[in-house]
Amino acid sequence: MTAPLRIALAGLGTVGAGVIKVLQTNGALIARRAGRPIEVVAVSARDRMRDRGVDLSAFQWVDDAPDLASLEGVDVVVELIGGADGPALALAQATMAAGKALVTANKAMIAHHGVALARTAETHGLALKFEAAVAGGIPVIKGLREGAAANALTRVYGILNGTCNYILTTMEATGASFDAVLADAQALGYAEADPSFDIDGIDAAHKLSILASLAFGSQLDFASVAIDGIRTITAADIAQARALGFKIRLVGLAEMTGAGLYQAVQPTLVPVDHPLAHVSGAMNAVAAEGNFVGRLFFEGRGAGEGPTASAVVADLIDIARGEFGAAFAMPVDQLTATPAAATGARFGQTYIRFSVQDRPGVLAEITAAMRDTGVSIESVIQRGEGPDGGVLLVMTTHAGPEHMVTAALARLRHAESLLGAPVIMPILAD
Amino acid sequence: MTAPLRIALAGLGTVGAGVIKVLQTNGALIARRAGRPIEVVAVSARDRMRDRGVDLSAFQWVDDAPDLASLEGVDVVVELIGGADGPALALAQATMAAGKALVTANKAMIAHHGVALARTAETHGLALKFEAAVAGGIPVIKGLREGAAANALTRVYGILNGTCNYILTTMEATGASFDAVLADAQALGYAEADPSFDIDGIDAAHKLSILASLAFGSQLDFASVAIDGIRTITAADIAQARALGFKIRLVGLAEMTGAGLYQAVQPTLVPVDHPLAHVSGAMNAVAAEGNFVGRLFFEGRGAGEGPTASAVVADLIDIARGEFGAAFAMPVDQLTATPAAATGARFGQTYIRFSVQDRPGVLAEITAAMRDTGVSIESVIQRGEGPDGGVLLVMTTHAGPEHMVTAALARLRHAESLLGAPVIMPILAD
Repeated sequence: MTAPLRIALAGLGTVGAGVIKVLQTNGALIARRAGRPIEVVAVSARDRMRDRGVDLSAFQWVDDAPDLASLEGVDVVVELIGGADGPALALAQATMAAGKALVTANKAMIAHHGVALARTAETHGLALKFEAAVAGGIPVIKGLREGAAANALTRVYGILNGTCNYILTTMEATGASFDAVLADAQALGYAEADPSFDIDGIDAAHKLSILASLAFGSQLDFASVAIDGIRTITAADIAQARALGFKIRLVGLAEMTGAGLYQAVQPTLVPVDHPLAHVSGAMNAVAAEGNFVGRLFFEGRGAGEGPTASAVVADLIDIARGEFGAAFAMPVDQLTATPAAATGARFGQTYIRFSVQDRPGVLAEITAAMRDTGVSIESVIQRGEGPDGGVLLVMTTHAGPEHMVTAALARLRHAESLLGAPVIMPILAD
Repeated sequence: MTAPLRIALAGLGTVGAGVIKVLQTNGALIARRAGRPIEVVAVSARDRMRDRGVDLSAFQWVDDAPDLASLEGVDVVVELIGGADGPALALAQATMAAGKALVTANKAMIAHHGVALARTAETHGLALKFEAAVAGGIPVIKGLREGAAANALTRVYGILNGTCNYILTTMEATGASFDAVLADAQALGYAEADPSFDIDGIDAAHKLSILASLAFGSQLDFASVAIDGIRTITAADIAQARALGFKIRLVGLAEMTGAGLYQAVQPTLVPVDHPLAHVSGAMNAVAAEGNFVGRLFFEGRGAGEGPTASAVVADLIDIARGEFGAAFAMPVDQLTATPAAATGARFGQTYIRFSVQDRPGVLAEITAAMRDTGVSIESVIQRGEGPDGGVLLVMTTHAGPEHMVTAALARLRHAESLLGAPVIMPILAD
């Protein structure tokens, strides 16, 4: 097996240039590990003239990405165009129709079309790999698909978006507001000019749905992920959470419950001694809990040129070695159609932040609503100023069904003593 | 591929019984993931009559483990006998001579004979897998062999022995002495009656040598691992380290340096905000640093029935899927014979604990020796009672070659003001 594995690369943004750098810098070592050289032979991108800091002169240039699929002498197409549909999906389909393997970093495309693509790959006996689609450089797809494969998994969860984690941990360190930290992050290039895809939790939800399918052997179900971003988190929330022994992280969590598959991305209170509480800045981390292995925890850089390219090339090495199989850990027909659990089915502790009028009887009104809907209160802190000029009232519940908390808040919806809508966050069970 | 993968299991201790439990409990799920059932067909152990909490009646019993190798209809032999040589090695060799795949959890055998076994496996095109040999349930062999394969790795290090970590973190939490915590751990079954293999660092060194070979593409070189256990660590060391911003962990570290491959297992000061500082109790953790991915960090349970069996069965699933290749990440002939760096070649900060006479001039004598050998001192704390009735004097150096520190201590060897030999520990660079 000394014939090189020949690669066509579509998309020459940060990650595409990174893949070329990895193969140029570590090529000899990679060839030793892969048993054969891995060589880029063709590339495609929108702008041929742009300087990407890598020498492209040795590669065939192809104007239209889908044409890479039909190039003779190409073994694998690497799709780094992005977007759930459009040219990325067209290229993916054309690649497998042409009998070539596909490697992609495209979480949106996999979240929406992953199972259909896996079915095509399976039919034709082709590799379909997407390690870089989740948690950048961390080999967590492999960790679930292979490392934890002996286990029935109960939960998989983690910090899946570096931008949000950077913002939350910077707010934590500096006491600054969400808006101020976001503006700084944008100025520094850590957040996009339009940051909604990250801070509203969509990106993390794409990744979570992929992890859930791998963990539970269920059909990928992005549409059922409950998604809540970090825009509503205030410096006061972070301070109150800290006083209660928690840090706030945007956590994507999937759990197989009696009521079905629960998938949610939401700001979450994490106990300060939980590994996720130590994950700072733009790092990502994933925990998976199995019935024999216990909790596995993976941490690393979740984005950026080097880490993402590292994952793409790891996929290429697996293909060069001939070590690949079912993309979602089992044949597509074996994936179960698992019903989605309602968001309120979550059983656990909840954090609730109210902004209330500063007058007697408010706490009595709130606690009565809690009592009447069966919510058991663990702690109450009434301290500091709320965002609406009121008093901040923070409450944690004992473990219970989340729909009871929702019912209590529904009862309080028209209470005059409440200023604005309460913010609720789950507390991660250890 | 619906024919079952048929397993013969040698050794029915904790892990062997665990493997049977995993396959019985998760068998249907594992068959979906592996594409075929995985079935134990034969077992061998010393005592046929012992109750192991699992039903063995469906399996063929074989009295002499090496006879498993020649059983018809067996695809894979799982070696869980233990020991670097003897019956374990005989079985491993016989298994591959008979054209069967081998899975083992035997770190000692792999550390001593891994490359020779890998050569045999390669010659015959057989799988040789040993995920369970390092860090129990954590898929770190896979993480290095595959997940980080695109990277030139600079360092790989971690907490590789749960018994030592349990002792050190219990000392940290309680302030108790090493001897007291060890005695408790033995009473609780967390430490062996003869604990030397664990607490003197041998077990961690076996694991480190395996990780180093995978990380650096070098021939396995257990003999060159510098090994220092945790017997000399006092409660005072832990308290002083804490005051300086560190925790003490038994760290196995391998680093490719200009002077060759540095491999050492030793008590190490870890910055309190480093992920290894958060690893408590019997957990294991491994960090690997690559030139593109940055630092990857893996944490989980490093021993015990469930986690170790989880790793053994993960190997079996890889084999059932046909996803396996070179055991040490590359063909054996590609592994380089890398010279070992001398222990003193380590460049970094060092912690030194002296017990000294309580009289003027002692510090001047010590600092003069440091100055004369080129050691730059970062901090000095003279506080508390030393183990020999003297005063405790703790010092940290700026980053420099460790042999300079050794030279300074050699100069002080006959100093009358020093009570007993100083204890030195490296400080982990972040």
